[in-house]
Amino acid sequence: MKATIVTIGDEILIGQIVDSNSSFIAKALDKIGIATHEMLSISDDKDHIISTFQKLQNNVDVVIVTGGLGPTKDDITKKTFCEYFNDTLVEHPEVLEHVTQMIEGIYKRPITQLNIDQALVPSKAKILFNKMGTAPGMWMEYENTVFISLPGVPYEMKYLIENEVISALIQKFERPFIVHQTLMTYGRGESMIAEQIEAWENNLPAFIKLAYLPSPGRVRLRLTARGTNESELKEAIKKQVFTLTPLIYDIIVGFEESDTIEVVLGRKLKEKGFTIATAESCTGGKIGQMIASVAGSSNYFKGSLVTYETQSKINVLGVLKATIENHSVVSEQVAREMAVNVKRIMQSDFAVATTGNAGPLKGESEEDLGVVFIAVASPNSVFVERFEFGQPREKVIDRAVNKAFELVYKEI
Amino acid sequence: MKATIVTIGDEILIGQIVDSNSSFIAKALDKIGIATHEMLSISDDKDHIISTFQKLQNNVDVVIVTGGLGPTKDDITKKTFCEYFNDTLVEHPEVLEHVTQMIEGIYKRPITQLNIDQALVPSKAKILFNKMGTAPGMWMEYENTVFISLPGVPYEMKYLIENEVISALIQKFERPFIVHQTLMTYGRGESMIAEQIEAWENNLPAFIKLAYLPSPGRVRLRLTARGTNESELKEAIKKQVFTLTPLIYDIIVGFEESDTIEVVLGRKLKEKGFTIATAESCTGGKIGQMIASVAGSSNYFKGSLVTYETQSKINVLGVLKATIENHSVVSEQVAREMAVNVKRIMQSDFAVATTGNAGPLKGESEEDLGVVFIAVASPNSVFVERFEFGQPREKVIDRAVNKAFELVYKEI
Repeated sequence: MKATIVTIGDEILIGQIVDSNSSFIAKALDKIGIATHEMLSISDDKDHIISTFQKLQNNVDVVIVTGGLGPTKDDITKKTFCEYFNDTLVEHPEVLEHVTQMIEGIYKRPITQLNIDQALVPSKAKILFNKMGTAPGMWMEYENTVFISLPGVPYEMKYLIENEVISALIQKFERPFIVHQTLMTYGRGESMIAEQIEAWENNLPAFIKLAYLPSPGRVRLRLTARGTNESELKEAIKKQVFTLTPLIYDIIVGFEESDTIEVVLGRKLKEKGFTIATAESCTGGKIGQMIASVAGSSNYFKGSLVTYETQSKINVLGVLKATIENHSVVSEQVAREMAVNVKRIMQSDFAVATTGNAGPLKGESEEDLGVVFIAVASPNSVFVERFEFGQPREKVIDRAVNKAFELVYKEI
Repeated sequence: MKATIVTIGDEILIGQIVDSNSSFIAKALDKIGIATHEMLSISDDKDHIISTFQKLQNNVDVVIVTGGLGPTKDDITKKTFCEYFNDTLVEHPEVLEHVTQMIEGIYKRPITQLNIDQALVPSKAKILFNKMGTAPGMWMEYENTVFISLPGVPYEMKYLIENEVISALIQKFERPFIVHQTLMTYGRGESMIAEQIEAWENNLPAFIKLAYLPSPGRVRLRLTARGTNESELKEAIKKQVFTLTPLIYDIIVGFEESDTIEVVLGRKLKEKGFTIATAESCTGGKIGQMIASVAGSSNYFKGSLVTYETQSKINVLGVLKATIENHSVVSEQVAREMAVNVKRIMQSDFAVATTGNAGPLKGESEEDLGVVFIAVASPNSVFVERFEFGQPREKVIDRAVNKAFELVYKEI
């Protein structure tokens, strides 16, 4: 079972937007045992689309196309489907009713010809009804390949994948099993981990693969097993995780891809009935925003005081003017006062604070670019660590955010 | 001049990470007039890489490969280069010295065999020296195609593109001109804009293309001209922008891709000498974080008070308990007090506040899921608007953030 994902759109080929649709689709396919053989991004051009279809025809089982639909895209995918499958466009009454309802009922404006044209679909296509938007998805079968066309708008594409495409694929194809498990680690580099677990890795059976997925401050270790017996695969993965864990127990925060540090931290806080608050300078509120991005975070997140300006550290957080004058605004002492004071102001059990020079220019301190102090206050104590995160600005912010999570997670 | 960008890595094909490298590379190529014909993501597999190279050989001028380098990737790209170009690996003394320096000097640990192996490179390759990491880039020419291999770590890839690859491509190839201009618009949908500017769009000359790039709350309109005379192209684009602008002047915030609303807002604040602060509930600090993400924002950003918990709205922001009891926490009145109070506490000229139900569960209010109130306080006044952003949670947050920027931008 092999699939290829094709993204249509010049905006991707000139680097104006990053294609995140393909990743979402690949993950959904992977879960039902369909391997993505390739991902392709091509232009909004009929000939390019047709030559791509010709190359894929009978070489993969499924082709999922996103983009090239909708009024301002000239519905190029729909027209290309007609040409490639030797078909014509016909008006689809249910789709027309839905489009009319969306435009007149929700957007509260009269329907136009552009909108009406969205209800034209190739006569041989099975329609994948798009409740989230006006461009319908389409399913066409030709010889040994299924072609599926989806709108490029992420919310609409996701809706169709989850509610129409996956169930139809499950019904159509027999599939092998793919079992993944991802260990989430924080605070150690890829090659150091590789050396630590080398002997274990060399002993992995051939049907299990290990991948290292590093990003600033963290590495995900992914185990993948492929085969025909799902329970055997699960058992084999479990066994490997069992022997791997003791080797790196000090850096593991979770055992699932969804166990990001903000999720794991939230779970821990909820379990123990603790609350948290942040006081942020150079991280600009990103730590708090990540805590808040988790559904249910209102149970344990009190809030953040983002004191970007020096004066606001004094006025809002009550950092002593003398501390700033004696130690500069980027200092251990200021970070400490920020954490202790936000904990008191927000009446939280834990607090984390950051102050640093993200760059590109030096601020009001004598510390080098990239230096960040992170303070963690817990019910009975407070500690501060100093880090050098280098440059550029975004890297400093990302690494400071991940490090702050790591420190506060370990403390709780 | 055509290029294809190839990303190597199973982690992309199973949807575990989104490939943002290709987008960065495409943008850099586009700037120097090299069109990206296709982007491809393929597996960490030698046969897959070789068959891809064979298909691209002599069909495109440049192939840029990222990923598949480094100790934990088994340096698959390097080995495949050797096989494809019939070459062998040799130790590169300068690279070895650099790797040794990085490991022993910066990471402060003894060098291992895995590290030493990184200095092995194909003998025919021109080395692209990677100051940011231990895996070198490589440049190989064969018949009519240049193959360039870069590490997959974004900071390292970016460094090599900016400091080595682009200048080498400029020297090697004669290139046509591509001129882009992007109009950044906020607050109106794609199809409504399309109808408004239809007559103008139909009159565009054939060498100029228009693309609509929608995301929650905003649409970017991109004009692209291709040809041989750069100044003529620039002039033609300028003329079109001049006639387009009056048609949608009320929604345009900028005329460059980099004119995101947080950048444009920052510029306006700086010009007028105003400062800003935010008080956020459902947006979790994202508005403040975006303001802070702009270099130089310390000139006008005072900070944010993220009062996620109801009690913290009272304690930190001084919202009256009676207001919350009488109107509920998601209400016009609470948003208004949040904006007015944060402006006073942070001593800023402007302030923006949000309170709403992002979902997926209802919070402590009677408003529907997706309802958000946004308040903007300016030196002499304050106003509040109510929005219904639907679901899911991320969409509500994104739309609220963009709408808040739009409202405060217009007010200033």
